[in-house]
Amino acid sequence: MHSYLVAEFHRQGEARRAPAYQHLRRTLQHAIENGELKPGQALPGERELGKRLELSRVTVRKAIAGLVADGLLVQRQGAGTFVAERIVKSFSQLTSFTDDLRARGLDPKSVFLERGVGEVTPEEAMALNLSPGALVVRYYRLRTAAEQPLALERTAVPQSVLADPALVGNSLYATFARLGIRPARALQRLRAIAFDAEQARLMHLPEGSPGLFIERRTFLEDGRVVEFTRSFYRGDAYDFVAELHSE
Amino acid sequence: MHSYLVAEFHRQGEARRAPAYQHLRRTLQHAIENGELKPGQALPGERELGKRLELSRVTVRKAIAGLVADGLLVQRQGAGTFVAERIVKSFSQLTSFTDDLRARGLDPKSVFLERGVGEVTPEEAMALNLSPGALVVRYYRLRTAAEQPLALERTAVPQSVLADPALVGNSLYATFARLGIRPARALQRLRAIAFDAEQARLMHLPEGSPGLFIERRTFLEDGRVVEFTRSFYRGDAYDFVAELHSE
Repeated sequence: MHSYLVAEFHRQGEARRAPAYQHLRRTLQHAIENGELKPGQALPGERELGKRLELSRVTVRKAIAGLVADGLLVQRQGAGTFVAERIVKSFSQLTSFTDDLRARGLDPKSVFLERGVGEVTPEEAMALNLSPGALVVRYYRLRTAAEQPLALERTAVPQSVLADPALVGNSLYATFARLGIRPARALQRLRAIAFDAEQARLMHLPEGSPGLFIERRTFLEDGRVVEFTRSFYRGDAYDFVAELHSE
Repeated sequence: MHSYLVAEFHRQGEARRAPAYQHLRRTLQHAIENGELKPGQALPGERELGKRLELSRVTVRKAIAGLVADGLLVQRQGAGTFVAERIVKSFSQLTSFTDDLRARGLDPKSVFLERGVGEVTPEEAMALNLSPGALVVRYYRLRTAAEQPLALERTAVPQSVLADPALVGNSLYATFARLGIRPARALQRLRAIAFDAEQARLMHLPEGSPGLFIERRTFLEDGRVVEFTRSFYRGDAYDFVAELHSE
C-alpha cells in the first residue's frame, strides 16, 4: 500500500500546480475512493509518510487534517489514523438501520435513553396527524455498532399503532413486521448540523463535530402516519446516496 | 409574534420536565416549523425575550445557540438573530441550482474561481467513464444569491460534450438545454462535513461550520456521463428532501 501511494503521488506530481498538502490530500482521497486504501485500514505514521514522499511533517499533517474533516479518515487517540468505515445508506429506499448494519456483518445495538407514553406535543401532533390529547409512545435511543455510537434517534409512534414502547427491542421495523404493520413510504428531510455538547458527549465526539439531522415521517398504504423520527447521524460514518430523475 | 411565543412557552410549560433552555429551544423550533416565525424574521433581543418569559439571559442564549447550531436561526453581527431562510432541495428530482433559486424569487449568480481545459485526473476518468488522456472542461464556482454565498461547486464535463468552459454562464443545465443535451438521471452521494479554512473564507463562515458535501454524476438516456460535480453546500442554508419507498 505504501508503494502504491508513493507511486501515485509522484505519477500525478508532474501535472500539478496545487500546494503539496493539497496534492497529497487528493492522492489519499483517490486511493480511498479507489479501494487501494480500504475501510478500517491504518495509514502509515505522519513521520514515515513524510519521509517516503519527501514532504515535511506539517504538510502531511495538513493533508490528513483535511481528510479527517471530510470524514474520510478517522484519528484514534494513541492508535493512529485509519480509513473511515463509512456506511452507505439509501435516500430513496425505506430501509431499517438494523438491516443496513447486519448487511455489513455488524451487530447493531440500541441503548434506550428515554422511553415512555404521553400526550402529543404540538410538533408531534402535526407530524403524526393526531389531535391534541392523543397519546404517543416515545423513545430516545443511542444506536451503536461494534461499540461505536452511530446515531441518536428520537421516535414517536401513535399509541393506537404501538401499545407499549417496551415492544420495541432493537428495531422498530422488526416490531412493525411482527405486528403486521407494513410501512409503504416515508418523507425524509435532511440537513447538516454541528453536534451540541450533550449530543457530542453521547456520540463520543468533540463538540461541534459535523453530523446529519434527518427527520422522517413514515406512512402506511392508507396514508396513516405510523412514525415520526428525528435522527442525528455521525458525519464521519454515513454517506447517503440516491438516484435522481429529470422531471 | 412575541405574545404567541410567550403563550406557547407557558402552554407547554405545565407538561415539561426538561430544563428551561431546552423547553425554550423546542418552543422556538416549533414556532419556526409552524410558520409562526417566518424565514428572515428577526427574533426579539435576548434581554427582552428573557424578561417576557421570566428566564435568565444565559438560558435564552443557550436555547438560541442550539438553534443556530441546527441552522434554524442565524446571527448577524450587530444586527441580531433571524430565522434562517432555508432552501429546500429535492434529493430525488434532478433540478438546477439556478431554477431552484429563481423559483424562490432570488437571482442566483456564479463567481468563477477557476476555469479551464485539461487531461482527466484518475478520479475524473473513473467518474466520467473516460480513458486516461481524454480532455475535460473544468470549472470551480462560488454560487451566490442575494449577495450570500450558498455553495462551492467543482464541475468536470467531457470536452466531447462541452467544447469550451466559457459556454457555461450561470447555469450548466441551461447550457446543456441550448446544446440539445438532455440529462436523464444522476447518481448523488451526500455527507456531512466541516468547512476547512479556505472553504470557510470563500463562504463567509467560521472555519469548521457544518456543510454538506455532494457528489453528482449525471447521465444521458444512453448511459453516457455528461457531468461530474462535487459541491459544498452551506449547512445553515439547505434542507434536502425525498420520498422513500419500501422495497
